Amino acid sequence: MRLPIRAVTPETESAEIVGWVHEVRDLGGLAFFLIRDRTGIIQVTVPKKKVSAEVLETVRNVSRESVVRVRGQVKAIEKAPGGRELVPEYLEIVSVAESPLPLDVAEKVPAETDTRLDSRFLDARKPRVRAIFFIRSAVTCAATAFLASRGCVNITTPKVVAAATEGGTELFPIAYFEKEAFLNQSPQLYKQMMMAAGFEAVFELGPIFRAEEHNTVRHLNEATSLDVEVSFADHNDVMQLLEDLIVHVYEYVRENCAGELAELGVDLKVPAKPFPRIPYTEAIEIANKTIEEKLTFGADLSPSAERAIGDSIGQHYFIVDWPTDIRPYYAMPYPEKPEFCKAFDMMHPRMELSSGAQRIHDYDLLVERIRAKGLSPESFEFYLRTFRYGMPPHAGWGVGIERLVMTMLDLPNIREAVLFPRDRHRLTP
Amino acid sequence: MRLPIRAVTPETESAEIVGWVHEVRDLGGLAFFLIRDRTGIIQVTVPKKKVSAEVLETVRNVSRESVVRVRGQVKAIEKAPGGRELVPEYLEIVSVAESPLPLDVAEKVPAETDTRLDSRFLDARKPRVRAIFFIRSAVTCAATAFLASRGCVNITTPKVVAAATEGGTELFPIAYFEKEAFLNQSPQLYKQMMMAAGFEAVFELGPIFRAEEHNTVRHLNEATSLDVEVSFADHNDVMQLLEDLIVHVYEYVRENCAGELAELGVDLKVPAKPFPRIPYTEAIEIANKTIEEKLTFGADLSPSAERAIGDSIGQHYFIVDWPTDIRPYYAMPYPEKPEFCKAFDMMHPRMELSSGAQRIHDYDLLVERIRAKGLSPESFEFYLRTFRYGMPPHAGWGVGIERLVMTMLDLPNIREAVLFPRDRHRLTP
Repeated sequence: MRLPIRAVTPETESAEIVGWVHEVRDLGGLAFFLIRDRTGIIQVTVPKKKVSAEVLETVRNVSRESVVRVRGQVKAIEKAPGGRELVPEYLEIVSVAESPLPLDVAEKVPAETDTRLDSRFLDARKPRVRAIFFIRSAVTCAATAFLASRGCVNITTPKVVAAATEGGTELFPIAYFEKEAFLNQSPQLYKQMMMAAGFEAVFELGPIFRAEEHNTVRHLNEATSLDVEVSFADHNDVMQLLEDLIVHVYEYVRENCAGELAELGVDLKVPAKPFPRIPYTEAIEIANKTIEEKLTFGADLSPSAERAIGDSIGQHYFIVDWPTDIRPYYAMPYPEKPEFCKAFDMMHPRMELSSGAQRIHDYDLLVERIRAKGLSPESFEFYLRTFRYGMPPHAGWGVGIERLVMTMLDLPNIREAVLFPRDRHRLTP
Repeated sequence: MRLPIRAVTPETESAEIVGWVHEVRDLGGLAFFLIRDRTGIIQVTVPKKKVSAEVLETVRNVSRESVVRVRGQVKAIEKAPGGRELVPEYLEIVSVAESPLPLDVAEKVPAETDTRLDSRFLDARKPRVRAIFFIRSAVTCAATAFLASRGCVNITTPKVVAAATEGGTELFPIAYFEKEAFLNQSPQLYKQMMMAAGFEAVFELGPIFRAEEHNTVRHLNEATSLDVEVSFADHNDVMQLLEDLIVHVYEYVRENCAGELAELGVDLKVPAKPFPRIPYTEAIEIANKTIEEKLTFGADLSPSAERAIGDSIGQHYFIVDWPTDIRPYYAMPYPEKPEFCKAFDMMHPRMELSSGAQRIHDYDLLVERIRAKGLSPESFEFYLRTFRYGMPPHAGWGVGIERLVMTMLDLPNIREAVLFPRDRHRLTP
């Protein structure tokens, strides 16, 4: 019976393991392999004179990254990884790897991002890369369980849609039988419609698609969004839910992914609650102290502004009380000062992670705001009509999973946080 | 502080609730409302002579399906739902519903499926409809937690792809900048590639897209698939994982969704393990005993054949040992009888829920099978190359979430199990 490599300890008497040949060294009378599975690495030591002819023959033929099955005695040995080695009685090549490899899994030869992504199946064999995606899995599973425990209903909304969330830009068109359709940019309108449906609290974890032309280290054309919407809640309520979620996910990863964090050299600090709330006007003042191109009221925050504010705050924080004009039409203006709205961004010191707001639930005000944005209420009829039959007050947010993982693990490029990135130039593998 | 309606019991002294006006009855000196939130329904009784002028004014103006906030004394009363009623001291209309409603939420007037789906936001206010989607949420959350507990890594693979999983049919084309792309029919090739990446066990819960022309009560053009792939496993191993999952999910729903099941009148029977394994040749014999159009060896199972076999077996079961020719190219033939393969379908008595197989992991055999299907290995190069560098043996399956929910709750149409269905004719809302 096969053991995961991590489960083989110096105390194990004998073991059968299956894994990939990570490294091979032949020192004449002795051959050494490192065998890797997803749990770890073990040294297999072959004293050539002491093993069977079959084992010796297999040792001669095996190539790096082939899959092998090894059965033998476990010996404690200080210098080997995990303080133990395996001396084979049985050695079988399960699946052969061609040579040369298109990518060096043992990471002795560094590779460019594009080369790595072209051979992602080999790149993801690297323990460092694997660690990122095991942590990403922990993040999505922990977030799902957390939101369910808070009474949010897990919903699925369509990705093929007839209309854009925020007007006609940045959409990928689809030929849907005889009709034109689009890939959805965001579940925004659908999750709001589920508030009209009386679901009261929902979440969705799914793909979003944005036909943005620019190619940066923090944008993807296909990304994963975690969206939440809650009825009878305002922006403050959902900011609290969001920071609770972030802290929970950090704690979960810290407790459950110690090996992966160590592999990545990340000493994960759980952010402190409550995250500071910085009004937009104050945020641009902070940014303007250090950035060269000064921001004026009503400007979006540039990446350098985000970095300047992040450096000053030094932890996760919210930017609140945004100018109504630079937020989407569905953000609720403050009744007493309608030039500001109940919108927020949740920021990591490096970049924006999430946008949210209390939403407008009044039909007439919503139509007015859609018109003010130069959009046509007629194109939103499927959405707008849900506001005419008892739409409750509601608020929500969306957080990008790739950015969450990227900032948590201090990855330099968002492509490190997605297995098969889609960008301006990349559509394969 | 607002209470969920279910939490208001005959013992509660006073309560504030927020919800939708489900029904209104005016009996002269007394007015009755039923107020509904997602947890239940409560009767609000207004003795007109005893309440304030403000409350009376609001009572006169309120329309069905408006959102109201009510604060008052709770009284035990036998005849009311939940054995209690609320006598209002404060009554506020939070959000007005227009009259007439496009759909009767109280279900006194039945509506056609299309009418219901056109106004899904109202349809989903019906306690019966809501119950379906709360159970669907329990299913997806429980499946996620179960697979994570079994060591499966939650992965996300691209929905925008350059090549089809099984050839060029039934694809929705996308304009991806200057390139042509497609919506992915299945994560099949990508989850197999993650076996080449050494992830060993993965799952994905996400949308799949099929441009099937036919419009039936059990097909969708956009569906949700739960996909699993496991290395160093054969078809028997993953069949066991699948039946464990199904039984776990049924048990979870039975334990956690008692109110929703009661609402739907479903007495949920947890299927017994192990599910019977019926070889394909035996399955067609069973079907041929009763169906009119007899099946010959090598035929796919018609819906009537599926029903005939299901009636005979009477519970969830597997059909195993399929003819190699009618399964996808990646299904592993039995070495000793290659006309049969290690593929299976997992069946509910009503219909197929899941397809799976041990996969071919040998490069040459896979190329041969792709050619035998009349497909070109060149179009699959991004996939095929992952078989040349140490692809482990592996097996897996995909299960349709909508069909799982549909059969669990005995729904007549798959559209009942998805909030915003996409079919041949429906692209909105």
